[in-house]
Amino acid sequence: MRFAFLLTLAHIGGALALWPLPRSLSTGNSTLKLSSSFSIHLKVQNAPSDLTNAVSRTTSFLKNDQLAPLTPDRGSSDAGDIKRAKSLSALEVSLTPGAAVRSITEEARLPVGSRSEEYQLHIPEDGSAATLTANSTLGLLRGLTTFSQAFYAVSGQVFTAEAPISIVDSPAYPWRGFMLDTARNFFPVSDIKRTLDAMSMVKLNQFHWHAVDSQSFPIEVPGFTDLASKGAYDASSVYSTSDVRDIVDYAGARGIDVMVEIDTPGHTAVIATAHPEHIACYKASPWTTFAAEPPAGQLRLASASTTNYTASLLSAVARMFPSSLFSTGGDEVNDECYAQDPETQADLNATGRTLEQALDVFTNATHKALVAEGKTPAVWEEMVLDHNVTSLSNETVVIVWISSANAAAVAAKNFRIVHGPSDYFYLDCGAGEWLGDDVANSWCDPFKTWQKAYTFDPLANITEAQTHLVLGGQQLLWTEQSGPQNLDSIAWPRAAASAEVFWSGPGGDGVTALPRLHDLGFRMRQRGINAIFIQPTWCALRPGECNINS
Amino acid sequence: MRFAFLLTLAHIGGALALWPLPRSLSTGNSTLKLSSSFSIHLKVQNAPSDLTNAVSRTTSFLKNDQLAPLTPDRGSSDAGDIKRAKSLSALEVSLTPGAAVRSITEEARLPVGSRSEEYQLHIPEDGSAATLTANSTLGLLRGLTTFSQAFYAVSGQVFTAEAPISIVDSPAYPWRGFMLDTARNFFPVSDIKRTLDAMSMVKLNQFHWHAVDSQSFPIEVPGFTDLASKGAYDASSVYSTSDVRDIVDYAGARGIDVMVEIDTPGHTAVIATAHPEHIACYKASPWTTFAAEPPAGQLRLASASTTNYTASLLSAVARMFPSSLFSTGGDEVNDECYAQDPETQADLNATGRTLEQALDVFTNATHKALVAEGKTPAVWEEMVLDHNVTSLSNETVVIVWISSANAAAVAAKNFRIVHGPSDYFYLDCGAGEWLGDDVANSWCDPFKTWQKAYTFDPLANITEAQTHLVLGGQQLLWTEQSGPQNLDSIAWPRAAASAEVFWSGPGGDGVTALPRLHDLGFRMRQRGINAIFIQPTWCALRPGECNINS
Repeated sequence: MRFAFLLTLAHIGGALALWPLPRSLSTGNSTLKLSSSFSIHLKVQNAPSDLTNAVSRTTSFLKNDQLAPLTPDRGSSDAGDIKRAKSLSALEVSLTPGAAVRSITEEARLPVGSRSEEYQLHIPEDGSAATLTANSTLGLLRGLTTFSQAFYAVSGQVFTAEAPISIVDSPAYPWRGFMLDTARNFFPVSDIKRTLDAMSMVKLNQFHWHAVDSQSFPIEVPGFTDLASKGAYDASSVYSTSDVRDIVDYAGARGIDVMVEIDTPGHTAVIATAHPEHIACYKASPWTTFAAEPPAGQLRLASASTTNYTASLLSAVARMFPSSLFSTGGDEVNDECYAQDPETQADLNATGRTLEQALDVFTNATHKALVAEGKTPAVWEEMVLDHNVTSLSNETVVIVWISSANAAAVAAKNFRIVHGPSDYFYLDCGAGEWLGDDVANSWCDPFKTWQKAYTFDPLANITEAQTHLVLGGQQLLWTEQSGPQNLDSIAWPRAAASAEVFWSGPGGDGVTALPRLHDLGFRMRQRGINAIFIQPTWCALRPGECNINS
Repeated sequence: MRFAFLLTLAHIGGALALWPLPRSLSTGNSTLKLSSSFSIHLKVQNAPSDLTNAVSRTTSFLKNDQLAPLTPDRGSSDAGDIKRAKSLSALEVSLTPGAAVRSITEEARLPVGSRSEEYQLHIPEDGSAATLTANSTLGLLRGLTTFSQAFYAVSGQVFTAEAPISIVDSPAYPWRGFMLDTARNFFPVSDIKRTLDAMSMVKLNQFHWHAVDSQSFPIEVPGFTDLASKGAYDASSVYSTSDVRDIVDYAGARGIDVMVEIDTPGHTAVIATAHPEHIACYKASPWTTFAAEPPAGQLRLASASTTNYTASLLSAVARMFPSSLFSTGGDEVNDECYAQDPETQADLNATGRTLEQALDVFTNATHKALVAEGKTPAVWEEMVLDHNVTSLSNETVVIVWISSANAAAVAAKNFRIVHGPSDYFYLDCGAGEWLGDDVANSWCDPFKTWQKAYTFDPLANITEAQTHLVLGGQQLLWTEQSGPQNLDSIAWPRAAASAEVFWSGPGGDGVTALPRLHDLGFRMRQRGINAIFIQPTWCALRPGECNINS
């Protein structure tokens, strides 16, 4: 069924262009328009408010998208046919009999792997009611998302030209993420919400919020408010506790879990602005000796006091985020920073530990604190590949970033994997080096095109026995050269590539995917997400005519 | 005097960070704030309205920029000192005695090389009136632009910390441009105006409007309205004659001349949507044989009828644009298109001309029509390097684009040069190939960083006797992968690099330029231009601390 879409590309404007492609899809060639009295009937007892809100949003998208088909005449020659077409007056939305009624938000925050996102959607050609069923409200949200993207508009008539439509859909992988760094440069809440809107459009379900880093600490943490008041760029560049709640709730209602990251023990220089006693090698020079980026500074991981402080801080942050996941980072720990820090050396001498042993103790303590808050920790790959952290539970989620080639080594250690490899998924690469006196290319050049991301194979070099370890993956935006001004343009529609790889499954053909990706970009723009044009409009309206082999 | 700025970087917040750097600049270290009654006294008899408007805009910028100094505390610790500082109550603006009073617009549209942009600005430290003088209203505009960028704001106090300031300024090169392609993707008028605002901020003076191309014809041309009605993407993607007038006037008032380009004889497939009789190889397949990009199609240059049509069209467009410049393009003419076009072959046979001879006749006819409208033609480099167009006047402006190495060959042929080399100045490069089935890198990868553009040498391989031929240069945005969504983010602050090369002169040090470029980016954002962050904010507030050698 996978390629049904492709077989029906030929007829009149309004080819069904869903992204991600449903796992099973069949379409016909009848035109069906939404009745002027069209409505969505929510047949769920005691429907949670986030589900009724999702229905309202869907109704609003159907009315306001007003996306003309991507054909040279934008469907205008079909206006008469559409006017004469049968009318659809209702979509009936219901849960599978016996399914528990929980909010979308609750369902979205279940542990990764236990979220129910599957749904079935049928749109008959004869004008009888369309039906959407799922085993959870989260599945209903995914189905509503598909439904809202199945229609085009010509002369005010909202229609599909491919009825009947039957979809049985479910994600190939449970983790489909997007990471945003709000520490190098700050993003207002509205930018994050718009990003969540875009994520939800392509059924991404995991927002990885790299909230703080050595450059700034923009989150107000109860009991630790000095970190933001001294470490944020300015008072207006802070996410208050209510901002965080707002973002987390907004995400939940859109089927997205928010995993926050407080990177430790590296990437923490900013903590010195409030607590210099906890930071080794703060602003040590040259920074190239002590850190991957300026300013240098790492938590004094061998200090009991710093370990306690860190555990308390992580616990406090954990209580702000309802997700079951929490990333403690662990990337790019710099040995020289500790080698030259007298306090750390004294602590190591006093306890008789090596640096690696101290890292183990530190990680054990901070992870234990998180587990006590009900969290499953996530870490970057170095914590299992470069260090000997014996205390890491195999429940730990390991995010592969340095190279896609490293996933196999993580699997060999029996850890769960999230793919975020810089060679496929780093959205920020390709703009040259950002350091002030380095005009060379950057380590992660060239630009990772959507086509490159689209070719990613989650199971490359993974044995069949290890496939259960692969949770999914995510594209990532580090913000050394990004801010609110290029957030949308650098991310969309590009980050939709991994959304399809991890929902529909890998191996899709980029050439035939392109027209659908155009469609997604056009629809995103209709919804206020500033996705860029990836080809001339001329090409977007003429699938295949801008191929070399056309 | 050039490096005076650098010598005064050390003191309190509010270092003077002008872009482009004035040719001669001296600064002191006194703080001077704008009086609450500060005003600009325009001492010009019968001042043209665009000059009085420029004064109003300057007053508005001074009030509304509210740009805090780029220091870690954003100047807050200096608030007391600023409050106690001397006040400046007036800027006196006057023309050099005897200078003719013409509008900025008129001055900006003078032939390139005869525009007077020099000015002198003095801001005393004792609170006595600042003075701005110039030989033309255009020079006054440049000086007002500098003045508005000399001030910061802390707690509502608008101030400079570097009085006295003395500037004697003039451009190194008369052509400082920016090219935008509005044919691959369409840009609303508001986007073009915002681009003109950004250009004017960095004293760019030549907007090269690549208005139409094979993909679309978005300009309504009197007498040729069928081209837009049939060749624009849709009715809302058309620049009406009043839109064009609006854009041209908006540019003029900001000291910018608008050179339109109607690319001929190639890049004209779209004309076939209204006049198939004038186009050879329209949509011929495979397009790779017949054109550099889809769709294929070129003006039948050997046809007398097509030549007349083209000359009339160019004349009609010429009358819409008051500039003395007009680009007829001439790039990427495809021989095979004509070799396989029976009509062209018949025309060549009938006249006994070779294709090159026909191109000569065609170019002579179209250029003659433009000269009759008072225009000086501009062409892309192929017209002098790849073809033997004997009819080209040496007044013709030749834009070098394929490679910076080709400028020397153009100079050797004694043509005037505008530098627009793809290897330095193409803003669109570096996002990978845009063709649908080609996942390789693009021909113009990698991304051209601002640092790369900044190292451009306009006189490389140009002999001293040829230096007079170098008019200047421009960065360019082709829009296969761009649209309104990434216009600002792809162009700014990057396109300011060439603005400084061609105003201040080449050879500037990129490392010391970076803090000023940050300042420009911050100020652009304050003015609604979505310039991107090129480093983490942490780095922008700490010059030099994000260098490798720091």
